[in-house]
Amino acid sequence: MDMRKLAAEAIGTFWLTFGGCGSAVIAAAFPGVGIGLLGVSLAFGLTVVTMAYAIGHISGCHLNPAVTVGLAAGRRFPVNQILPYIAAQVVGGVVAGGLLYFIASGAPGFDIAGGMASNGYGAHSPGQYSLAACLVTEVVLTALFLFIIMGATHGKAPAGFAPLAIGFALCLIHLISIPVTNTSVNPARSTGPALFVGGWALQQLWLFWVAPLIGGAIGGALYHWLSKEPQGAVTGKA
Amino acid sequence: MDMRKLAAEAIGTFWLTFGGCGSAVIAAAFPGVGIGLLGVSLAFGLTVVTMAYAIGHISGCHLNPAVTVGLAAGRRFPVNQILPYIAAQVVGGVVAGGLLYFIASGAPGFDIAGGMASNGYGAHSPGQYSLAACLVTEVVLTALFLFIIMGATHGKAPAGFAPLAIGFALCLIHLISIPVTNTSVNPARSTGPALFVGGWALQQLWLFWVAPLIGGAIGGALYHWLSKEPQGAVTGKA
Amino acid sequence: MDMRKLAAEAIGTFWLTFGGCGSAVIAAAFPGVGIGLLGVSLAFGLTVVTMAYAIGHISGCHLNPAVTVGLAAGRRFPVNQILPYIAAQVVGGVVAGGLLYFIASGAPGFDIAGGMASNGYGAHSPGQYSLAACLVTEVVLTALFLFIIMGATHGKAPAGFAPLAIGFALCLIHLISIPVTNTSVNPARSTGPALFVGGWALQQLWLFWVAPLIGGAIGGALYHWLSKEPQGAVTGKA
Amino acid sequence: MDMRKLAAEAIGTFWLTFGGCGSAVIAAAFPGVGIGLLGVSLAFGLTVVTMAYAIGHISGCHLNPAVTVGLAAGRRFPVNQILPYIAAQVVGGVVAGGLLYFIASGAPGFDIAGGMASNGYGAHSPGQYSLAACLVTEVVLTALFLFIIMGATHGKAPAGFAPLAIGFALCLIHLISIPVTNTSVNPARSTGPALFVGGWALQQLWLFWVAPLIGGAIGGALYHWLSKEPQGAVTGKA
Repeated sequence: MDMRKLAAEAIGTFWLTFGGCGSAVIAAAFPGVGIGLLGVSLAFGLTVVTMAYAIGHISGCHLNPAVTVGLAAGRRFPVNQILPYIAAQVVGGVVAGGLLYFIASGAPGFDIAGGMASNGYGAHSPGQYSLAACLVTEVVLTALFLFIIMGATHGKAPAGFAPLAIGFALCLIHLISIPVTNTSVNPARSTGPALFVGGWALQQLWLFWVAPLIGGAIGGALYHWLSKEPQGAVTGKA
Repeated sequence: MDMRKLAAEAIGTFWLTFGGCGSAVIAAAFPGVGIGLLGVSLAFGLTVVTMAYAIGHISGCHLNPAVTVGLAAGRRFPVNQILPYIAAQVVGGVVAGGLLYFIASGAPGFDIAGGMASNGYGAHSPGQYSLAACLVTEVVLTALFLFIIMGATHGKAPAGFAPLAIGFALCLIHLISIPVTNTSVNPARSTGPALFVGGWALQQLWLFWVAPLIGGAIGGALYHWLSKEPQGAVTGKA
Repeated sequence: MDMRKLAAEAIGTFWLTFGGCGSAVIAAAFPGVGIGLLGVSLAFGLTVVTMAYAIGHISGCHLNPAVTVGLAAGRRFPVNQILPYIAAQVVGGVVAGGLLYFIASGAPGFDIAGGMASNGYGAHSPGQYSLAACLVTEVVLTALFLFIIMGATHGKAPAGFAPLAIGFALCLIHLISIPVTNTSVNPARSTGPALFVGGWALQQLWLFWVAPLIGGAIGGALYHWLSKEPQGAVTGKA
Repeated sequence: MDMRKLAAEAIGTFWLTFGGCGSAVIAAAFPGVGIGLLGVSLAFGLTVVTMAYAIGHISGCHLNPAVTVGLAAGRRFPVNQILPYIAAQVVGGVVAGGLLYFIASGAPGFDIAGGMASNGYGAHSPGQYSLAACLVTEVVLTALFLFIIMGATHGKAPAGFAPLAIGFALCLIHLISIPVTNTSVNPARSTGPALFVGGWALQQLWLFWVAPLIGGAIGGALYHWLSKEPQGAVTGKA
């Protein structure tokens, strides 16, 4: 195992969690000129665009246990490196949660009960979406996320553009689903703030490990199947 | 016919419809921090950017009957594959409509009468635009959409950037015209939500098949004419 | 003169004017979810991004008399083609103004006195900026616009990215200056709506020919000077 | 020393300061349709995207003393050119401050006490963040900014995309931190408006030299360490 890959994953996941959740906590509802859910969605997306260009050539820039598992399911990542990658990602997410707590608590009136952008369902869904709706949303969006990651990094896709495609996919996923679950699709990003918020955030954290990992595996496997060259087939006039 | 192409078109059109209409239904008017029509426009655009990098090398990533017809009109797509492509796209749009209905109805106070981002004219235009204005808008915008698609995928255009150009074109089209028709330029995207909303949405659906298909054919043919090398011409001092 | 180039310039300038001004008139202030000046800025920028990929390889995609004059000042465009290019651009802008008038007047309560996104100064500046402030703003922003165009299309700049750089520059210019003049930097875009609004819009139109053309020429010449290889110079240790 | 490099840095830093601070002063809070902190963040980011394509091949397009120092710390820039680069950047920032003052004061009701987008902490932080929170925010964000710059311009990163990655990083940094310090990460950008605002803006200016320079050096050195090829190591099965 190359330690530089793990360092890159930790730093990158720190950036994703700090940048995405930080923009939500600090800037989303700033009076009169706040960036809103659109700004938060863009922030999450740009954490991936920027880091993918910076460290993609070092670690692959997963920044997300569901991506690591999904790429393994899609036969693009060795199974024996899954656990170290996930450990590094969780470390990055937790450090980001701590730093965000330090900065946010430097403003008058900060209240950790606001949730620090933790993910939740039911009573703790921003829009009070049911557990079933939240579960399906996280599974489907993570599956499509992996589908896009697998496709944009395929050998036949245009070279160099994958960071844009993948980062914009994360932006889009947030544009759709922040009101549903605050959008996870990433267990490491969920774990960071939840550790500092505690209580309901920790109690509901299981969903944001289970659903993204299942969705990621589905998406990776689906694309793997779709992109397989037909064997012995006559591809016809197309 | 390669079934993988049809699967890719169905999945991609699912993504376009679910992502675009989903952001509109779930996040556009979320209290205080909603993403607004700007966020919805960006979401529609990014569905195409992301899928074009993921499946462009499999199916061409049309995701839209008007694109398929327009590319055929522009001599870029074989006529005998139009119908299977359109069928796959409609399947994707309808599945997206169903999933969106399931998720949206998981929130308290959801009302299908809100329209699930269905397209409409006259009394059902968001800004009450007349049928004539709606018809012209859809024809012109779809024509320009195909003009841009044809140009950005031309052999002389920079390689690899077409997904950005095409997705950003769809974003721009929404920035202009959501108040007019809720923006279709895509019969498959229109059909998905309309099937679940029923009533007026189904009664007005005809316009969002007729106008985009006409506009798409015009745009594809227009670019084809414009980009033809002059034969036997003296091109002059330019 | 190749007529296809002029057709491309007319279609492209139609798109810039219709897309940019259309988003302003139709969607900027839509109740509750309007796209605002940010959405309008993005729309103007994306008209250029999309058309530059579609027709850049046909006509160079100027879409703007100030760009044509500035590129000539920068020794990148032949002087004897300036006038036909400008004529084609103005035709595109005027057709866009007419189509926008037709569509916008299809909504109840439309009032041409709202200005159709015409450019103005003093009492007709959106933020009541003085003539001097408006003049300087238009000259400086057009100069920097041409500076960026010249640089991003330079032989040493990365190939294929110029449409993004140039379109994003136009987006940025609008983010800064819509409150000042409604942002022109483009006489053809200014002329289209002004013809239909008449009155003050026509009386103030002179500024939006004079300032952008001066600024464009300055910017083109400035970059030309900056990028010249030093002759007979010892470039030193850098 | 090549004077064209210094001219390019001065013009580019002028653009960054004028575009970013200008959008904040002129357009952020425009009644009803203002671009908000999201629009300002995008404006800052696009100044870098556009200039990096225009002058990256001339001067490297630092536009920021913290970038120049950070690249030197990362062994990518010669130490003996640091001071002339910083001088040119400060000149650009100050000219931008002056021009912005001229334009902004051309509108009725302009009040320099509004701060012209100057950076501040404590009582002059937009969200009243403490000095400690502001210091940590500026150091961390500048460090990550340099980390991304170093990575995106690394020989193994995709060619041509660095301007997007770096500009989007600056956009993201603003999405997170405008409420904290109005976001500096750039001493030249901070100095320009502060000179015209005077008073508290000058008294607090020290922080926006100290923190970005420290952060930049950390980030440059961190990436340099991370990207070093292991010497004599067995890289293992990955």
